[in-house]
Amino acid sequence: MTHRLGANQYGKAETRVVRIVRDTPVHEIHDLNVSTALRGDFAAAHTTGDQSRVLPTDTQKNTAFAYAKLHGVSSIEDYALALGRRLLEACPAAEQAQIKVERYAWDRIGDHSFARRGGGVRTAVATVGRDEAHVLSGIQELVLLNTTDSEFKGFLVDELTTLPEADDRILATSLVARWRHGSTDVDWNASYDAALATLLRTFAGTYSRALQETLHAMGGALLDAQPGLAEVRFSAPNKHHFLVDFSGFRVDGLTNEGEVFVAADRPYGLIEAQVLRDDAPPAGDAWLAVAGFC
Amino acid sequence: MTHRLGANQYGKAETRVVRIVRDTPVHEIHDLNVSTALRGDFAAAHTTGDQSRVLPTDTQKNTAFAYAKLHGVSSIEDYALALGRRLLEACPAAEQAQIKVERYAWDRIGDHSFARRGGGVRTAVATVGRDEAHVLSGIQELVLLNTTDSEFKGFLVDELTTLPEADDRILATSLVARWRHGSTDVDWNASYDAALATLLRTFAGTYSRALQETLHAMGGALLDAQPGLAEVRFSAPNKHHFLVDFSGFRVDGLTNEGEVFVAADRPYGLIEAQVLRDDAPPAGDAWLAVAGFC
Amino acid sequence: MTHRLGANQYGKAETRVVRIVRDTPVHEIHDLNVSTALRGDFAAAHTTGDQSRVLPTDTQKNTAFAYAKLHGVSSIEDYALALGRRLLEACPAAEQAQIKVERYAWDRIGDHSFARRGGGVRTAVATVGRDEAHVLSGIQELVLLNTTDSEFKGFLVDELTTLPEADDRILATSLVARWRHGSTDVDWNASYDAALATLLRTFAGTYSRALQETLHAMGGALLDAQPGLAEVRFSAPNKHHFLVDFSGFRVDGLTNEGEVFVAADRPYGLIEAQVLRDDAPPAGDAWLAVAGFC
Amino acid sequence: MTHRLGANQYGKAETRVVRIVRDTPVHEIHDLNVSTALRGDFAAAHTTGDQSRVLPTDTQKNTAFAYAKLHGVSSIEDYALALGRRLLEACPAAEQAQIKVERYAWDRIGDHSFARRGGGVRTAVATVGRDEAHVLSGIQELVLLNTTDSEFKGFLVDELTTLPEADDRILATSLVARWRHGSTDVDWNASYDAALATLLRTFAGTYSRALQETLHAMGGALLDAQPGLAEVRFSAPNKHHFLVDFSGFRVDGLTNEGEVFVAADRPYGLIEAQVLRDDAPPAGDAWLAVAGFC
Repeated sequence: MTHRLGANQYGKAETRVVRIVRDTPVHEIHDLNVSTALRGDFAAAHTTGDQSRVLPTDTQKNTAFAYAKLHGVSSIEDYALALGRRLLEACPAAEQAQIKVERYAWDRIGDHSFARRGGGVRTAVATVGRDEAHVLSGIQELVLLNTTDSEFKGFLVDELTTLPEADDRILATSLVARWRHGSTDVDWNASYDAALATLLRTFAGTYSRALQETLHAMGGALLDAQPGLAEVRFSAPNKHHFLVDFSGFRVDGLTNEGEVFVAADRPYGLIEAQVLRDDAPPAGDAWLAVAGFC
Repeated sequence: MTHRLGANQYGKAETRVVRIVRDTPVHEIHDLNVSTALRGDFAAAHTTGDQSRVLPTDTQKNTAFAYAKLHGVSSIEDYALALGRRLLEACPAAEQAQIKVERYAWDRIGDHSFARRGGGVRTAVATVGRDEAHVLSGIQELVLLNTTDSEFKGFLVDELTTLPEADDRILATSLVARWRHGSTDVDWNASYDAALATLLRTFAGTYSRALQETLHAMGGALLDAQPGLAEVRFSAPNKHHFLVDFSGFRVDGLTNEGEVFVAADRPYGLIEAQVLRDDAPPAGDAWLAVAGFC
Repeated sequence: MTHRLGANQYGKAETRVVRIVRDTPVHEIHDLNVSTALRGDFAAAHTTGDQSRVLPTDTQKNTAFAYAKLHGVSSIEDYALALGRRLLEACPAAEQAQIKVERYAWDRIGDHSFARRGGGVRTAVATVGRDEAHVLSGIQELVLLNTTDSEFKGFLVDELTTLPEADDRILATSLVARWRHGSTDVDWNASYDAALATLLRTFAGTYSRALQETLHAMGGALLDAQPGLAEVRFSAPNKHHFLVDFSGFRVDGLTNEGEVFVAADRPYGLIEAQVLRDDAPPAGDAWLAVAGFC
Repeated sequence: MTHRLGANQYGKAETRVVRIVRDTPVHEIHDLNVSTALRGDFAAAHTTGDQSRVLPTDTQKNTAFAYAKLHGVSSIEDYALALGRRLLEACPAAEQAQIKVERYAWDRIGDHSFARRGGGVRTAVATVGRDEAHVLSGIQELVLLNTTDSEFKGFLVDELTTLPEADDRILATSLVARWRHGSTDVDWNASYDAALATLLRTFAGTYSRALQETLHAMGGALLDAQPGLAEVRFSAPNKHHFLVDFSGFRVDGLTNEGEVFVAADRPYGLIEAQVLRDDAPPAGDAWLAVAGFC
């Protein structure tokens, strides 16, 4: 009985590229975490150890640094596309390059001074082939919370169900959202800013009968607002905030009317869902090896 | 232009189930991290907020606890299959349940006393449908290192390549490996023990011209040793250990002949690869939503 | 040869208290991580297992939740003081209560909707005794970066020194700063806001010959601006950003004039320093068990 | 009103030194995380930016690497002492060097092949002055668990106490323990091995009325067993394992007699305590800047 090599890829993960633009006294910063991967005919490296077709991951790292200067980072999507195209050019055996970029936001506190903002991290994934390219924009670690207008009731009950129905609960998530563009001819930064605004506005404005419903509303609103988007995917932990039980506290008049909660770490609900435009162009390999979505 | 719900799933992630078997004075411990997910016809929860088909994630958590007692944990694979089957039974709208289990190992230090071992974490993923079930066994966080018998040379060079060839380097990885069983009629613990031994022995005994070659040898050895396995997948960071440059140190006789290295955090190479038996049965959805493999 | 119990304390760490103020339709959120510790005559618990003087850590947790309602969280310093006083009252054997609070900031995105801000986390430590109380205010995880106006040269050189002098480098840190108040009669929120503004302004406005000099300027500015403060302490990793060496890249005209850096993880410089007002009142146990300062 | 520099120190933290001994075909590995700090007269660096007395942290890092070869790592205590002495020699302004070392254990799987063991991490802290030196040995991340022989009852009750008494609970901790040697003339490895064995044996063999009592027994046993030790300190989170409440599960005969627990993340009890030999020599600065002990 014999065996064979199946799907494979290789690359350099988490190169921490920091690009300072110092053309004027008012500097700019692009603080990136860049991962590259190549797919194609690299079987010999696996089966015989022959590296002659392999562009080293060290070179991929060098390229990420060099392209931060040679091409620049007008947006992470544009940078990812340029980097992917370069790697295909440099490595003939590769059929596809996938570039993942995370961008950490900084607030300006001076002409050449910054404080890291925290909060949601903007992301891009460019999957670049010899003939086509796909781009996913997104955000991760976006922690959102509604203090009311969230219920959970009418659910299926079996003999192991103990959860009471909730009329008014905290709804919170640490959102990962990615949306696929229908083309690569996009004003990336304007699109991102608009998308984030739509997601926040819809989260804040939607009465929720389940996290699923909130996500679906957010995805629908995003597709409605931006005709150039083909689909949206969410991976959303339900970060439970349990009402603290004050019933055993022997203090006169002490009640807990949705005021004091404990934020739990684990376990957490986990909802994953996709909303597609009916006429969405095919995704190809846009989502291949992108973790966190069913 | 309209849109629609695409693929979706929901469940409870990272329930920390600890099962103590205290039938005799010599206790046993099963220390688990359990994640469950259901897929099926849950569209109404997304589109109208109707929860009537939704078995709450809280109930899924309860079921994980209850089944640790009702069914027991003879192996994590067996427990995952039982849990998946129960969830399908309890939730008619579900077409598929996917159960992921991590098991933390403990060393016995007394009849009822244990020290957590650390090292590699045993894993199982059971994907249970109404008609078929798939099981992946595996290990993660298995950190392996060879101090010699590893080279990297003869690679493709472009104008951004600066890496020198290496005749004798450290090879190290924090391995994630998963292997798919061809059936569910398996002696899970014996199979796991044998698989781990094969992986370690092959890693230690293989001269490496690239991490790819080492992984391929490990996957092939595993399939050769266990006819019941259909395929193996690896996600392997190349944990770089760089030789420290002593050339600038002005100390007589101080050299570094492969003796002092710095262990780097980021970036790291990342190799993902699959080895399949030629007559492997179809994988179905066995790998759906399993992160870390291309 | 005999032995005896030395210093000891016990408490509940990292209680995740979330207090929602919903008195009007515009809700407020106080998202806290609360740790309490008691010190006093608890020897019997250690030596004979006698718990009769021990207020359980579970009760300390309950108290943290109850006081978020009973006392409220007008500021984390005020809340910490109230919680400390209550614990002393409830536990006669305790001579001292130390309360540590972290507060995660949220941005409002709707009347009852919030997005977690990230960035620096506000902190307070109240050490409450039967006769006196001390309060430290502070911030942690405040990541600051200057893209220029930082040098490092003229340092001591021995035979193992290989670092070149730097005329113009990135200076970055993830600051932990704590400042001790001379009394407990303080407008805590106003003081904090002013302190943070002073720290940011001084970081941005100081030419740096070493991170030590920058910290000293920040501490001095803080004491100058707020007469009520007795001292400031900093724990500041020097988060190295190394200029990427483009000299081996064979691309015409490609140079790196302080534009492309790699952000390193480990190792990092670590500077700890204290600036005191000359007439600072005694610190007592204010800093006892507060990690991260020499 | 003027201010002045107070206590300060600087150094290089978390240098990841990997030393391979390849004198014979059976290689050895010393996998270390090394942090160095210097204290002394470095005021000018803070107040005027004058670096002339400052041995750069980069040089400290180089020294950590060089001494892994020049001096070797027969034990981490011996290596830390040598490194501290060297830094004092190289930096005249320093009055004290403090060296912290963590050692990650590996299991041999071949002559030049290793698998990282996980579990407890061995530690050493050497505080080296011009006239005296102190050494702390220790272990951290040592996760221990007893499935029975642990109770918690008879505790103080106030109006916010809701915890029921427990006759038979899980006791678990992730221990940090450090013990101070009375001299530097010690067989470090033999002492460490014996200390770890004593700690494990005492944890397993002690009936516990509180984590405090268990720690005290462990500390006492350690001092009894090794006359050369002056004191022991513990920082021990009480890693709560809560019995899962099956009372709401509507399954005939399903009970939970100490068999199924949920391992909680936060909050956790936190016990810190010290056991001293009655005639312990003075500690000097041995514990200065060592986090995690009251």
